[in-house]
Amino acid sequence: MSSAWLDEIKWDSDGLLPAIAQDAETGEILMFAWMNRESLALSVEEGRAIYWSRSRGKLWRKGEESGHVQQVKEFRVDCDSDVLLMKVNQIGDIACHTGRRSCFYKRLDAGHWTEADPVLKDPKDIYGK
Amino acid sequence: MSSAWLDEIKWDSDGLLPAIAQDAETGEILMFAWMNRESLALSVEEGRAIYWSRSRGKLWRKGEESGHVQQVKEFRVDCDSDVLLMKVNQIGDIACHTGRRSCFYKRLDAGHWTEADPVLKDPKDIYGK
Repeated sequence: MSSAWLDEIKWDSDGLLPAIAQDAETGEILMFAWMNRESLALSVEEGRAIYWSRSRGKLWRKGEESGHVQQVKEFRVDCDSDVLLMKVNQIGDIACHTGRRSCFYKRLDAGHWTEADPVLKDPKDIYGK
Repeated sequence: MSSAWLDEIKWDSDGLLPAIAQDAETGEILMFAWMNRESLALSVEEGRAIYWSRSRGKLWRKGEESGHVQQVKEFRVDCDSDVLLMKVNQIGDIACHTGRRSCFYKRLDAGHWTEADPVLKDPKDIYGK
C-alpha cells in the first residue's frame, strides 16, 4: 500500500494525531486517544485500533490485556486532516478501563460531574491476572 | 455556579482540552476543536459551543459568522477528565466550513482519502459578505 495517505495527515508537533473511536452500529462515542504514524499504519493494516500511549511511550494495541479489541470498519479524517475518526465494532461491548461501555460517562449536571453510565464489569475481572 | 467542575478538568500543558461535538439526535460526529478554561466556562454558561482557536489565539464562538451555532444539550468528559464530549443541536445542519454536515467527510478507501459526503451549501454563500 502506498503511504501517500499517511503523508496527507497533519501530525501535530509531537507527531501525533487525535483519534476518536465511535461504535459503528450505535454511533456512541467510545473513547479518545492518540496515534502516531506507525500506530495508524498498523491500525489500517490490521483493521483494529492501535494507539500510541503517550504515558507509556509505546504502541497500545487496544484490547491486548482486556480482550476488548476495536475492529475498525471505517477510517475518516476531518477537513483539516488532523483528527481521526474510526467507526468500530467494540469486542466485549466495553471500551473503558473502568468497565463501562464508553469512557464518556461523566455528565455535567447542575455544576457537578456525575457518573451517568453503569459499570458493566468489574475492572478486576477484566484485567485480573 | 461553583467552578469546582472546571478545576476537575485535566487541561493539557497548553491549558487546552480536546472537544468533540456530536449531533444529539443522530449521533453523527460533527467536528473536533479545542477549548480553554474560559471557553468551556462560557460554553456552559451560554449553552452553546465556544471554542478556543489555536490558530487565531482567541475565542471562537462557533457560528459567529456562519450562523451555524451549536446548541449544547449535554456536556460530558471521559474517564481521565481530559477530553470533552458535547451533544449538540447543530443550527443550519452544517458544521463544517466546507459546507458539509460534518467535518469528517474524508474516508479511507483502498489507500486513498476520498470525499464521502456532499457539500450542502457553497461556503461562499455561508461566509460571503
